[in-house]
Amino acid sequence: MSKSDKRVQEANLSPEKVMHKLVSLAKRRGFIFPSSEIYGGLSSCFDYGPLGSEMKKNIKDLWWNAMTRRHQNIVGIDASIMMNPTVWEASGHVASFNDPLIDEKTTKRRYRADHLIENHIEKLRRDGREDHALAVRQAYEQASETEDQNRALYDIIVSEEIKAPDTGANDWTDVRQFNLMFQCNMGAVAGSGGSVYLRPETAQGIFVNFHNVREAARMKVPFGIAQIGKAFRNEIVKGNFIFRMVEFEQMEMQYFVKPGTQQEAFEDWREERFNWYTEVLGISRDKLHWYRHDKLAHYADLAYDIKFQFPFGIEEIEGIHSRTDFDLKQHQEYSGKNMEYIDQTTNERYIPYVVETSSGCDRLFLALLSDAYTEDIVDGDERVVLKLSVKVAPVKAAVLPLMKKGEMGERASKLRDELAASFRVQYDDAGSIGKRYRRQDEIGTPFCFTVDHQTLEDNTVTVRYRDSAEQERMPISNVREFLALQLV
Amino acid sequence: MSKSDKRVQEANLSPEKVMHKLVSLAKRRGFIFPSSEIYGGLSSCFDYGPLGSEMKKNIKDLWWNAMTRRHQNIVGIDASIMMNPTVWEASGHVASFNDPLIDEKTTKRRYRADHLIENHIEKLRRDGREDHALAVRQAYEQASETEDQNRALYDIIVSEEIKAPDTGANDWTDVRQFNLMFQCNMGAVAGSGGSVYLRPETAQGIFVNFHNVREAARMKVPFGIAQIGKAFRNEIVKGNFIFRMVEFEQMEMQYFVKPGTQQEAFEDWREERFNWYTEVLGISRDKLHWYRHDKLAHYADLAYDIKFQFPFGIEEIEGIHSRTDFDLKQHQEYSGKNMEYIDQTTNERYIPYVVETSSGCDRLFLALLSDAYTEDIVDGDERVVLKLSVKVAPVKAAVLPLMKKGEMGERASKLRDELAASFRVQYDDAGSIGKRYRRQDEIGTPFCFTVDHQTLEDNTVTVRYRDSAEQERMPISNVREFLALQLV
Repeated sequence: MSKSDKRVQEANLSPEKVMHKLVSLAKRRGFIFPSSEIYGGLSSCFDYGPLGSEMKKNIKDLWWNAMTRRHQNIVGIDASIMMNPTVWEASGHVASFNDPLIDEKTTKRRYRADHLIENHIEKLRRDGREDHALAVRQAYEQASETEDQNRALYDIIVSEEIKAPDTGANDWTDVRQFNLMFQCNMGAVAGSGGSVYLRPETAQGIFVNFHNVREAARMKVPFGIAQIGKAFRNEIVKGNFIFRMVEFEQMEMQYFVKPGTQQEAFEDWREERFNWYTEVLGISRDKLHWYRHDKLAHYADLAYDIKFQFPFGIEEIEGIHSRTDFDLKQHQEYSGKNMEYIDQTTNERYIPYVVETSSGCDRLFLALLSDAYTEDIVDGDERVVLKLSVKVAPVKAAVLPLMKKGEMGERASKLRDELAASFRVQYDDAGSIGKRYRRQDEIGTPFCFTVDHQTLEDNTVTVRYRDSAEQERMPISNVREFLALQLV
Repeated sequence: MSKSDKRVQEANLSPEKVMHKLVSLAKRRGFIFPSSEIYGGLSSCFDYGPLGSEMKKNIKDLWWNAMTRRHQNIVGIDASIMMNPTVWEASGHVASFNDPLIDEKTTKRRYRADHLIENHIEKLRRDGREDHALAVRQAYEQASETEDQNRALYDIIVSEEIKAPDTGANDWTDVRQFNLMFQCNMGAVAGSGGSVYLRPETAQGIFVNFHNVREAARMKVPFGIAQIGKAFRNEIVKGNFIFRMVEFEQMEMQYFVKPGTQQEAFEDWREERFNWYTEVLGISRDKLHWYRHDKLAHYADLAYDIKFQFPFGIEEIEGIHSRTDFDLKQHQEYSGKNMEYIDQTTNERYIPYVVETSSGCDRLFLALLSDAYTEDIVDGDERVVLKLSVKVAPVKAAVLPLMKKGEMGERASKLRDELAASFRVQYDDAGSIGKRYRRQDEIGTPFCFTVDHQTLEDNTVTVRYRDSAEQERMPISNVREFLALQLV
């Protein structure tokens, strides 16, 4: 088999352009639609379309297999979104999962008070008013240490005459702490007692099931519990497409270890998780960055994030946090249930420490799209191509008959049916073959199999490789195995 | 290969006992846990444990593949749970997705007014007071036609001195219509305008995306859109384990057809969907029943349910409904967007009719568990066995070394690793081999591969079949392919 000789030259794209083009492509080809679009949408909610839902499922399946099936000592769960409200008291979310918000009275718009001030400081700097900026910065830093933080933030906003960034209005209400958990009433209980939250993270569903899972699955420390599921945060700050949404999907694993051994487990998971992005998902290594937290959350003794270079900046896609025994201890206190683990061989008793890997599925989806987005020139023709890995690509192969009707169509349909039993494939017989290749390039289909005149003579098809645009012939009877080997 | 000769005799079990045993087994082995159990749970919410989450994923994957990958003209989506609130005005849920509820003042408990009356009539019948029962029945039927239905229901409850079934108390409030949609506030908008609902069904996410999907995926009528996702109903009536939950998962497909052709499509889907339960999931045909709706919902022109014989009664697991053009017409009216389809070959324009297949994933899970639950006697020993189909079973195979250490352990570990790359497998080296077989039987593992003395001599293992408990030997190098063939 000799490959055809193609010349491919990549174009340079500015980050802003990439983002704009991605949003447009995502809608046009059915990756992502704005939610309820015929009604003007809903703030920062999006729907995954035909290709998007396939690709998201691929990501989740790859994570699930990597984290559970490949590890003898990790099992999965799928906990409900609604939980007993005391869970969120124990976790600290009821008391302190807040943002300071302020309303502008004339426009009835709501803003993050801290962001108004930060943007104001930024603007002062840009205007060359360094001294003034420094003074506001100092007042802002002092505000977080005063007893009435809300009042202090309000005073800065009013004395600085800060205006709403979008409308310019500035008739402000007081600043209030606004809890980020969505709350709704459950009908089963009359009166006000039936209030429940939508979980703001999936992790707590794992912690409260620690003993249930340990007993049912006969797990011994160290062991992990993995979960994929929706979480909800009632945030004001949204944006950057699907990067930050009020409704989003997490892929989390909590690894329970003996106290004192968390550092070692942490380093192992750091390595394994980073490799998953590069080796399994095929993300460019040079777009991934480690970020070590200087300021640790109250429950953590070590924390790293894996960040990805999005077109709009370097942002977190996964957190790997050593959470100590904070969560299990809290649940022990609030539930009155003993959360200790007893080592059957040594008779030691302890509350395990936890190393958490927490990945955002939607922002990872966006990372993969933006990493894959490429414009290049093949033999003089411009094209858009999504260089997704075979495992991530929503469509694994396209079957294209050179001519729609007759024996070519029949042979192609037969190949399509054979492949569709095992793989996600598309069949396309509309338009010129070049146009069909471009359509598949644009959605990241790694292989196109074309049934042509020669197929009728010698039972071979051409396979065209997406990235190089090169083609070679293979026996039609080899296609299924060829594809299967690409997905191992 | 000669099979060993086993005598298996099935035990007879009363339905009540089966349900009780299922709930216990589900918790003990990690299929289903009560949600937030350490805090006393949350009304009718459940978590899927290690085996439950695997089995549920299998069900969803089988549905997804059967409904999308196998059909060239069906594509999937994954819409957000939160949608623009106008969606639910158009769908009719805001106005009429209600239950009549009544509170008992002294106990502060809430009840379905209609159910209180229905139970009362039932009780009168059981007590032999047929005439009285008939009179109340008549009043109850008239109530649904009066203008002030709430008042009429209240009058019956008070005049009949109906008591709360659980507490016996009867100091009643008025009857109120209570909307079944969960409602919560979105922070992005100040004031009362930011109220959103949790979707009570996934179908509307499909309807509002009709044109987006059609355009992006270049679909021509007839075509279908499939979706799997969570829905929420704030119901008072819950129970029968995971059969009816406030938070549940739907698997829905909306099939868009030319008006006038819905009957034919309906019959095709009736057949295909029924066969999926028997042929793909392996549910006993004699436990499945067709139910034709006499009273049709306002949007339907034909409706059948597939019902399953649960231990607690024959109940719906899937609805196949011909929904006419009701939904698309409603969305056209409320959004002002044209919902017509234009046939490019004939230039006909019409709003498509819809045939819907809507399946409840959680109740299907329960149907599969209860269909599979078996107690039998193998060679004189009692055992519990879940006769799940290979595709549904959470664990596909167990690898068991006859002895823990030495070469048997090594060979078994090697086999485990080889299989784990493709299948969900368990490794068990604890306790007698008979005990290990029983553990696997109880969770429905179809095959156990045992590494024994002979393995070290001739590189064969025994495969033990779950249902027959029979064993035969096979070369260790054949195991992987043997398993793969079971899952085609």
